[in-house]
Order: sequence, then C-alpha cells, then structure tokens
Amino acid sequence: MSTPPLASDLAPLGIVAGAGTLPFEVAEAVRATGRPVYILGIEGFASDAIKAWPHGMFRLGTIAAPIRLLRDAKCTDLVLTGRVERPNLTNLRVDGKAITTLPKILAVMTRGGDDTMLSGLIDLIEDEGFRVVGIPQIAPALVAGTARIGAREPSKTDLADMDIGFQALKHMGPLDIGQAVVVIDQRIVAVEAAEGTDAMVRRVVDLRAVGRVRGKPGTGVLVKAPKPDQDLRIDMPVIGPETARAVSDAGLAGIGIEADGVLIAGREALEKEIGDSGLFLVGRAKA
Amino acid sequence: MSTPPLASDLAPLGIVAGAGTLPFEVAEAVRATGRPVYILGIEGFASDAIKAWPHGMFRLGTIAAPIRLLRDAKCTDLVLTGRVERPNLTNLRVDGKAITTLPKILAVMTRGGDDTMLSGLIDLIEDEGFRVVGIPQIAPALVAGTARIGAREPSKTDLADMDIGFQALKHMGPLDIGQAVVVIDQRIVAVEAAEGTDAMVRRVVDLRAVGRVRGKPGTGVLVKAPKPDQDLRIDMPVIGPETARAVSDAGLAGIGIEADGVLIAGREALEKEIGDSGLFLVGRAKA
Repeated sequence: MSTPPLASDLAPLGIVAGAGTLPFEVAEAVRATGRPVYILGIEGFASDAIKAWPHGMFRLGTIAAPIRLLRDAKCTDLVLTGRVERPNLTNLRVDGKAITTLPKILAVMTRGGDDTMLSGLIDLIEDEGFRVVGIPQIAPALVAGTARIGAREPSKTDLADMDIGFQALKHMGPLDIGQAVVVIDQRIVAVEAAEGTDAMVRRVVDLRAVGRVRGKPGTGVLVKAPKPDQDLRIDMPVIGPETARAVSDAGLAGIGIEADGVLIAGREALEKEIGDSGLFLVGRAKA
Repeated sequence: MSTPPLASDLAPLGIVAGAGTLPFEVAEAVRATGRPVYILGIEGFASDAIKAWPHGMFRLGTIAAPIRLLRDAKCTDLVLTGRVERPNLTNLRVDGKAITTLPKILAVMTRGGDDTMLSGLIDLIEDEGFRVVGIPQIAPALVAGTARIGAREPSKTDLADMDIGFQALKHMGPLDIGQAVVVIDQRIVAVEAAEGTDAMVRRVVDLRAVGRVRGKPGTGVLVKAPKPDQDLRIDMPVIGPETARAVSDAGLAGIGIEADGVLIAGREALEKEIGDSGLFLVGRAKA
C-alpha cells in the first residue's frame, strides 16, 4: 500500500476479468479516480455486465488475440480480477502464439498449486511488455483495513480463536492450500483447500448438525489471510456478502481478516449482512 | 510394535467401546489369542452387538461406576476403541467421583484439539491404577502394514502425490487438525479437520463435478497418517470399506497410509472394495 495510486496516469487500465462482480467494482473505483479502463473478459467466465464498458473478449489458451486487444486499447498496466477455475487442458484451444510458449504454459498450468500457476502467468504477461499491478494500488477502497465492520465487539474467546487461525494460516503457507480456516473454542474445525471459503464455512453448518462441532452458536471465527509470501497482484483473497451469510448460518461470531490483505466484493451488501446478522468483521495488521 | 503381545496375560482385557464395529473386531482378535475380554460400552455410542460379549455400560462423565465395573471384571489393561463425538457439556451428567476431579475433566474436555482432550483422558484413567495399551500391541492384525492391497500398482504420479501428502501431514501435525489429505496432480485439494476422512474424500466428488478439481478420473491419492508425535493408544486413524468406496467415487487412484500407524476396520470388506474398484492401498514406513 506504499505505492501511490496511479490515477494520474491517463493510459487506460486494462482489467482482465474472470467471473463475478469484482472486475466491475474495480472498474468503477478506477473510473472514479478519473482514469479510463478497458475490460478484457475471459470467455466463459466474465459476466455480461462487461457490455456496459469499453471491452474485448478472449479465450483462455490464446495469447496473440488478447495482446492485440490490449495494445489497441493502449493499455500497459493490467490488473487480474475475478474467479477463473483451473483450465481443463483437454478443452483448451491454443493459438499460434501460444504454441511457441506452450511448454511454458503447460508447465504453469499442469503442476503445482495455484501459486505456481499464477506467478507463472504473471511472468508470461510481463514478458510481453505489460505491467501487472495489484488491486490495493489502483482501488484501495476495495481492500479491508483495520476498521471494524459491525456493532458487535469480538470477545476474548473470539480473539483467542483468531490468534489460532492466523497462526495456522501462517504455518500452512508453504503448503499452498487455502487461505482460510474456521476456529471454534480454540479448535480448528475446517481448513480450506480447493473448495473455496464459502463452501468451507457452509461445512460447519453440517458439522454442528451432526455433533462433530460443539460450542454454543455464536462462537467461533472465520479467519482469512493471504499466504505469508503471497504476491497480492494475483489471487488475492476475497470476501463478500455470501461469505457473511455463510458465517451467520454456521453460527459463528464473526470474521477475522488480515488488514490490507483481503478484498471486499459488494461492500454495501456485506456491511448490511454483517449488521443484520449481528456479526463482526475485524482486520488485524500483518504480524 | 516392539512390545510383545500380551496374550499370555490371562487377566481379561478391558475394551472401552465407542461407536462402530472396531471394538468387536478388537475383541475377536484378542479372544483368538486366548485372552478373555470384557467390553465396557459407552452409553449412546456402543452398538447393541455388545450384548454378545461379557460387558457393562457406563455414561460419559461418570467415573466411579465404570471403575467399579472394570475392577469387578478383574481388568487392569484397557484399550480405548470406537468413535466418540466430543461430549456436549450441557448434557453431561457427572457422578460424585467425577465431581472431585471435575476441574481436571473440564480442562481436558473444553479446550484444545482432540490431542489435548485424549491424552488428558489417559492420565485420568492411569491415575486410577489401570494401564492403557494400544491396539497395535494387543491386536496387530488390525493394523495396516507395508504390504500392498489391490492389484493396481501406484504410478509415478501417484507416488509423487503421496510424497506431497505425507509431507503436508507431517508439517500440519503441530496444528492438531486432521490426519488425512487428498492430493491430485501434486496439488492438495482437501484437508481433513473436524469432518472426518470419509466426508473429506466425498467432498472431492463435488469438487470434480463443479470443475474445482481437474485431473483425469483415476488420478490422485488419499493420504492418511497419525500425527507425527501421536500417542497410538488413542484416536488412532482408521480406514474401512466406506473409505475405499469414497476414494473410488472421488475418482482417485488409491490410498497411501503410514505403515503401522493406521487401523483397518472391516478388512475383508475393504479388500473386496479395493479389488472391485481397481484401487490400491499402500503402506509407507514412517520417515
């Protein structure tokens, strides 16, 4: 967050858009600073809302076409946003340009966790002369800070659960798995891997139902943070109103996030959900 | 496994029995060695099959009554088997004896992960003059060794997935969470916490369906091991036929376990399931 916003740079920001509303929240936040945007949607992922913006579309696996679109739009800075499921290689269609870099692409896509895949992707893009920037730099308003959301104050037990969660995430960082855990009564009851945060939290509903998780309703915390050495230009953790709803359904007390390390998608709806459900969302500075 | 079997000791072995068939498999294995058994069932958990054996019942939270039953049956060695969900303290009824040790019991039951709870339980039992022994000592036939089950041989990729799984479990040991992970294409896609192994494996079925896990069906491994410093007298990891069925449904290639660290419940049915599904189960010596 030490880099100043780039709003004064009037070249359009290129927004490579996967699924969800986040790409458009980023676009609005950037446009509000006076900088134009160009959204490059990924076919099969980007929402139709893209049509309201200057945009182009490309297919995963192609390289020449999206590069031409970004150059025609005069973009040099790019931001990568929105969800993209791991590509299915058997359905992947590659263009001529991609074929020359295919060994590298395959190496990136077929082995290792998300970290390997995504940092390889950044290298590929920057090899083409673009600069990949992070959402914290260009739309800091979308990043959760230390200010609490919700009227409820975390209890001592909640804070102890958060401690355990943050420590666990830090410890698990090298394993390149998820970015979130649920802690209830000082016990880690769910660990996120490929299922995603909301699905992991929903699991706790079932665990309570079958008695595998005790602890009174209204106890326990979802803890979410980037991996310890994560490049925040890619795959930055995101929470949204659905996350808050899952946390409420799971009978937890609230959400602890690492300040400046987690994006909020749909802030207004998230704040309403947290208020209505009597939860808290607190940010803790990175240790 | 260096301690010799205790079959020559003709005092009956006390088997404290939670849910499932494992207590009776242990009882049969021990009786086959010529040693009598006495099964002490936990109310609400032990199956009705207990009626075919010399037995008594007790309620979680009581201490005087089960101790009297075990002494009347002339047991000094005990083994703890079968599943017991974390007790719900609000429903717990405690007897006079328990009240004198209540602070200790509460400390054991209300804080920390399973490890803390269970090793505290052993201390409580041994304070009363009993000796808690492990299933590997008294029924070694129930423990999975290094011999492969199933005709299929693990591929190079399967072995690489197993490596990653064993390393991850070792690394996560201090977090006192689950004892199993699923690894597909060198990526950890599911981590067990409170949900249990079979539920975790079943999650991979859904992850494949929604495209969150790629990798051809027939790739990936369930890896299961005790925690690095686990006391094998309590909460020893168990796999059974349902585990193998879940692994098959999840489209994995097989199961890797730490040799001498994992129990097999229902071996005959498990072997049949592995054979019918074309899976493998391989044991790897502890690193």
